[in-house]
Parts: sequence; structure tokens; C-alpha cells
Amino acid sequence: MRVAVVCVGTELLAGKVNTNAAFIGERLDCLGLELSSCITVGDRRADMENVFAGAVAGNDIVIITGGLGPTFDDITREAVADALKTGLETDAGALAAVRQFFDGRGIPMPPNNERQAQVISGARLIGNRVGTAPGQIIEHERRVIFLLPGPPKEMQQMFDESVMPYLRQFEAGIKKHFTLHVFGMGESAVDEKIRPVIESARAGDGGCTDFTILAHQMIIDIKASCRGRDELLADETLAVLKSEFYRVLGGNIFGEGAQSLESVAGELLNKHHKTIALAESCTGGLIADKLTSVAGSSLYFREAVVAYSNEAKIARLGVKHDTLAAHGAVAAETAREMAEGILKTSGASLGLSVTGIAGPGGGTAEKPVGLVFIGIAGHGIKTEVSRFVFAGQRNDIRHRAANQALDIIRRKLLTFAKK
Amino acid sequence: MRVAVVCVGTELLAGKVNTNAAFIGERLDCLGLELSSCITVGDRRADMENVFAGAVAGNDIVIITGGLGPTFDDITREAVADALKTGLETDAGALAAVRQFFDGRGIPMPPNNERQAQVISGARLIGNRVGTAPGQIIEHERRVIFLLPGPPKEMQQMFDESVMPYLRQFEAGIKKHFTLHVFGMGESAVDEKIRPVIESARAGDGGCTDFTILAHQMIIDIKASCRGRDELLADETLAVLKSEFYRVLGGNIFGEGAQSLESVAGELLNKHHKTIALAESCTGGLIADKLTSVAGSSLYFREAVVAYSNEAKIARLGVKHDTLAAHGAVAAETAREMAEGILKTSGASLGLSVTGIAGPGGGTAEKPVGLVFIGIAGHGIKTEVSRFVFAGQRNDIRHRAANQALDIIRRKLLTFAKK
Repeated sequence: MRVAVVCVGTELLAGKVNTNAAFIGERLDCLGLELSSCITVGDRRADMENVFAGAVAGNDIVIITGGLGPTFDDITREAVADALKTGLETDAGALAAVRQFFDGRGIPMPPNNERQAQVISGARLIGNRVGTAPGQIIEHERRVIFLLPGPPKEMQQMFDESVMPYLRQFEAGIKKHFTLHVFGMGESAVDEKIRPVIESARAGDGGCTDFTILAHQMIIDIKASCRGRDELLADETLAVLKSEFYRVLGGNIFGEGAQSLESVAGELLNKHHKTIALAESCTGGLIADKLTSVAGSSLYFREAVVAYSNEAKIARLGVKHDTLAAHGAVAAETAREMAEGILKTSGASLGLSVTGIAGPGGGTAEKPVGLVFIGIAGHGIKTEVSRFVFAGQRNDIRHRAANQALDIIRRKLLTFAKK
Repeated sequence: MRVAVVCVGTELLAGKVNTNAAFIGERLDCLGLELSSCITVGDRRADMENVFAGAVAGNDIVIITGGLGPTFDDITREAVADALKTGLETDAGALAAVRQFFDGRGIPMPPNNERQAQVISGARLIGNRVGTAPGQIIEHERRVIFLLPGPPKEMQQMFDESVMPYLRQFEAGIKKHFTLHVFGMGESAVDEKIRPVIESARAGDGGCTDFTILAHQMIIDIKASCRGRDELLADETLAVLKSEFYRVLGGNIFGEGAQSLESVAGELLNKHHKTIALAESCTGGLIADKLTSVAGSSLYFREAVVAYSNEAKIARLGVKHDTLAAHGAVAAETAREMAEGILKTSGASLGLSVTGIAGPGGGTAEKPVGLVFIGIAGHGIKTEVSRFVFAGQRNDIRHRAANQALDIIRRKLLTFAKK
């Protein structure tokens, strides 16, 4: 069973990032289906027709995303019809659905949107609850072709609701996996620790396990998967692997699967009935943004002060003028007063501060770009300030500092668990 | 001249987003080179070898990214050697460079990293100033194959410094383009406005212009490109198009090219010698994060208070207890007091507030999820509060509210220009 994904969009070949291929690949993986290839093609009709025809010739299932919108560059419908040497028809039901989408929002339907009701002859329609373009399922000469819209939210909803149930008939064995997230070690160091585990797994299982390791802004993700026919055996293999990874990496593993540093910090704050407030300088609100991106964060997130100017550090956080004059805004002493200041003025049970030089300007030999101090204060705990020098450009430094700060919150909360 | 990009990485077929293809596509586009295809392949050696051999057979130039790292799943070097039926050699210079990378950071080189000094026989090396894996240029039977590392920063630096100069020998005519960014209109409405302009351009130029239109969190990007041999003609065609787009879209165009809502807001703040302070609730620091992600923002960004709790709204911003009791945290009156409160307490010349319901919980019939009030206050201007209902999930609502707030700042600053 060969499956290909074709993503349509000139923008995907010229600057726009493609998230659909990754999403579909992950879903297929869960069905034990191998993705033979993922091809991206631009909006030019001749190129599209060639790629579609080639993909249909060489695969059993072809999933095409993009180019179903109402605008002038949305010509997937026409190119697929040509590639399959068939025609297009306007579907009355689809037209009504597009019209209803606009009626529901009290907007008159632009005439362009009528094109979205055109379907490949013989296709079955897939409803779109998020946008206007319906999807299409085409069974053509023992092949199946799916047309799905390009916007990820529309595509994902249709994939999960309509494509996955259809594809289950082709499910090939099972594939299980887990992902562990690590913070506090470099990628090579993680690799060295887990390599003996992986090698012994590979030696024992005859090749049914697979591993990837990926680093992003100091977070290392380890993904392990196990393929086979015996679900219990796969579960057991993965359970053993996971416990081995925990044994060699310990508390550096901060979460699994959909967990993030911010969601884990939030869970721990909830669990220990703590609230948090932030005093951010160089991270500019990024830590607050990450923490509050988690649904339900209003339970533990009290407030943040993004004190970019010295005046704000003094007025909002009670940092002493003398401290700033003697040590500057980027200093351990300032981070300490910021953490203790936000703790005191917010009424939260934990206060975290970040001050540093994100660059590109502002660095000196003594205080280089990337220098960041992170402080944590709390009721009944000793205030701690740590010094870091993060590599990268301005936004790398900001993201690394934010991740480091979230990990500091996490590790501090873990010490509460032990008390 | 056919060019293919092959991106290596199981993770790219199973959840990880691929940004390299987009970057390379954009660079090739500037040289007038067409990307024939972009193929993604996993880390399995047999699949890689097949795809590499196929890409080399069907193209003149093949650019391969990923799989040059030190870890167990980095096997691009080996698979390329097999696909080309040649061998690998350890390069003494490359080994010294990898070693030096670690020495420079005072870290002992992990033994894994030695593999990064292996090169395809006859390849020329490309230095890596950002990471440890050198790139390789292989001239093989009238084809050129580039091996580049997967991490975007390493790949991009090598591409611009070494691959682009090499590819200039194949430059095919010129291709120029511009991108306009629009806020304040829907995608279909923008399409209707610009369609006559595009149609008349297409009718006149014999097909040398190309257009895409893309929406993301209410920002609409229009990209126009012009291909040809005559640089002056292309420049003139694009200049006419651009002025036509400005004519039909007016002040809804907020920027061009690398500009963003936050960078434009920053430029205008700078230009009018204004400073800004924020009182954020449902956006949770996102607007502060966006504004401070711009280098140099400390010139105009004073501070932000992320007042998630009612206590913080009262204590930090002077919102009246009675206002919160009578209208709730999500109300025009509260947004007004937040904007005026941050203006007064920060000493900035403009104060912006956002309060709303990002969901998923907390919505009612009267105040649904997505309801957001944005207030703007300033010295000598009348405070204004606008009401919005944004569609989407929690993080869509947060991002849309943040973009809307930045556009409100921008439009307010534009009125200063007219005074």
C-alpha cells in the first residue's frame, strides 16, 4: 500500500512553511501506513497536472492538500480533473453549504466562492465545518484520491473526521510510539546516554523499533516507535524502553507527548496550590505568553510585569535605584530584587525574574549578548539567581531564556513534592 | 535546468515542520531557477538511497538537507555515497574543524562527532560557522549535489555563503518580487479588490507575472513576482502593480517584505517620538512579546502589565473595584480603565489595553468565547475602546486579538502623522 502526499501552493516553494505534510505523516504512521513520499508543487497548472498524474500512477492512495479556496490561484480542482481525464460539475448541496457558511456569519457570499462547489465527476464530498471549501474523495481505477483544503485547521478537521475512518480499511499492523521531552542536557549528551539503550533494543527486536532525536531551543525530544502485529508485545517493548530512558536521563525528562515546559510547570503549580507572578525584562512577555497559552492558566497565573525600562523596574518591582546604578539592569543583584519585588507586590506564592541582553546591540566584553540572569523567589524558600550565556540571535536568546526559566520553575516545584 | 530539493528526516514525515524547503525555494526563485519538486524522505537508509538516486537521475542540481549530525539517525552521508556508488573518507581538515568547535566552547568533543568529518569521495567541503556538520558539494556525472545540515540556521548560513555564489552560474534570467501585508479586510474581500488589477496585468504581460494571496491570523499577504530577461521592464511592471494595489487597498496595507505589524508599529512609535505601555489580560503577554521581539524596541517600549487576575487589574492599573463588580473583567468600561490606568502609571505616551475571553472555558451567551475589548489611551487623545468577536481556538483568539491591537496602535499613530 503506497501512499503519497502532494501539497499544492507556490507559497510552499517560496517561503511559506508547510505543516500539512507533517500532520498527515503522523496520522498515517498511527495506521502503520508508510508514506512513500511527500511532494510539494506550485500553483502552476501544468506542473500540478504532471505531479498529480505521476502520484496517481505510482501510488495506491494520493492525498492532495491546498488550492481549493475561492481565489484566482486555487486551481487544484481543475488540475485534478485534467490529470484524471475527467470533468467538473457544480454540486448543488456543496453550493448551498458554502452559501450557508456566509449566511451564518451575516456576510453576502462573494461570487468567487461559487467555484468552491465544483466537484470532480463521481467524487464524494467531505463537509467542512471550519471553512468554505468542501473536501472530495475520488475512487478512480483502483486508486483513492483525497482533495483537502490547504488551511491546516480545515484540513485537520476533515482528515480526522472523514479521511482516517476511510483509511482504517488499509490499516497495516499497529504502530505505537511515545515521545519524551528533555531539558538540561545537550543533544549529543542525550544521544550518548540513550545510545546503549537503543542499541540493545535494536539488537533484541529484529528492527521493529525506530528512534528519532531532535533539539529545539534547548528542548530535546526523543521519539520511539514500535511496529508490528502484536499490540501487547509492542506496548511491552515501549514500556521497557521508556523506563530505561527514565533511568538514564532522570529528572531531565520533563514531560511526554503533548506536554510542554509551560504545561508541566502549570500542572505542578496547580498540584501544589501555588500561584506565580513574573518580572520579565529581556524575554519581553514571552514567558507570560507561554504560561497563559495553556487553557486554565488563570488558576495559577497571577500577573506579569514586563519591566523593560529601569523606571518600570523601580516603580513596579521596587528594584533599588542604587542597585541599578551600581550593577546595571543585567546583574544578579537586579534579578534578585526583581524576583523578590514581584513576589511581594503580586501576592503570588512564587516570583520569577529574567533580565539579560537579547541583542543584537547592548553587549560588552564583560556583559556579552546572551547573558541572562534568572531569579526565583517564594514564601519560605531562599531566593536563587542563576547566570546563563545563551547562544544564537535575539529571538533564540529570548526563547532559550524563557525555556530555561520555565525549567527553573518546574525544578523548584519538584523540590516541594519531596518535602 | 531542473533543481530538486530533498529533505531528510523521519521527523519531517511525522509531526515536525519543514522550513528548509521554503527557504531554499525562495532563494532559487530569486535566481530564476524553477524548483521541479521538493521531496521529503525519512531516515531509513533504503528509502533515502532510492530517493537520492531518483533525484540525481532526474535533475541537474539536487540539494539535500538533513542527516549530517552526530547521532545514530544521521546517515545521509552513507546513503548518498551508496546512491552515487562511491565511498566515504575521513577529512582531516573537517575533523580539526569539528574538534575546534568544541574546543572553542571548552567542551570535550563527544566521539560521535567524529562521523561528521566523513566526506563523499571527491566532495568539496563547505564550512559551518554555526554548528559542527560541514556541508559538501559533489560534482558527479554532470550533476551537482549539495549536502547541507538540517538545522535551519546552519543550512541558511551555508546556503547564502556558499551555495548561492555557486548557483549564480546557472542563473536563468531575473525574477523580482514584492510582498504586501494587509490588515483590516478578509481574504475574499482583498481578492475581489485586487482581481481586476491582476487580470489586467496578466492580459498585458504575456504571463511573466505571478501572484499569491495568503491569510494568517487576519493578516493577508499578497505576493507578486515578475520573471523575464529585462530587469528594467520587470521593475517597472512591479512598480505599476504595487501602486495599483495601494490604490485599491489603501491604508489597509500596513507593510511590505520583512515588515510585520509589530515592526511597523515600532517604526511609527519611533518616528513620532512616542512610547507605549500595555495592559494585557487575555493576550497574556503576547503583544509585549511581539513588540519586544523587534531589535531596538527598548527605545519605545516602556513596560507591560499582564494583569490576569482582577487583583492585578486593581492594584497595578487602578481599575475600580466597582467597575469590575458592575461590568466584569471583560467589558468596554474595564478596557477603558485599563488603558487609562497603564497610561497614567507607566508614564508612556500611549497606553493600550486588551481584555477578553480566549476560552475554551469562560464563555456565556452574552459574553461568548472570542469576545475581546481593546482600548487605546494617550496624552491629548480621546480614549477609544473597540469590541471584537474573534473566531477560532484559544491561541487563534489570542493571536488575532494581538494582531488587531497592533493594527489599532498603527492606525492611531498614522493619525498623528496627519496632524
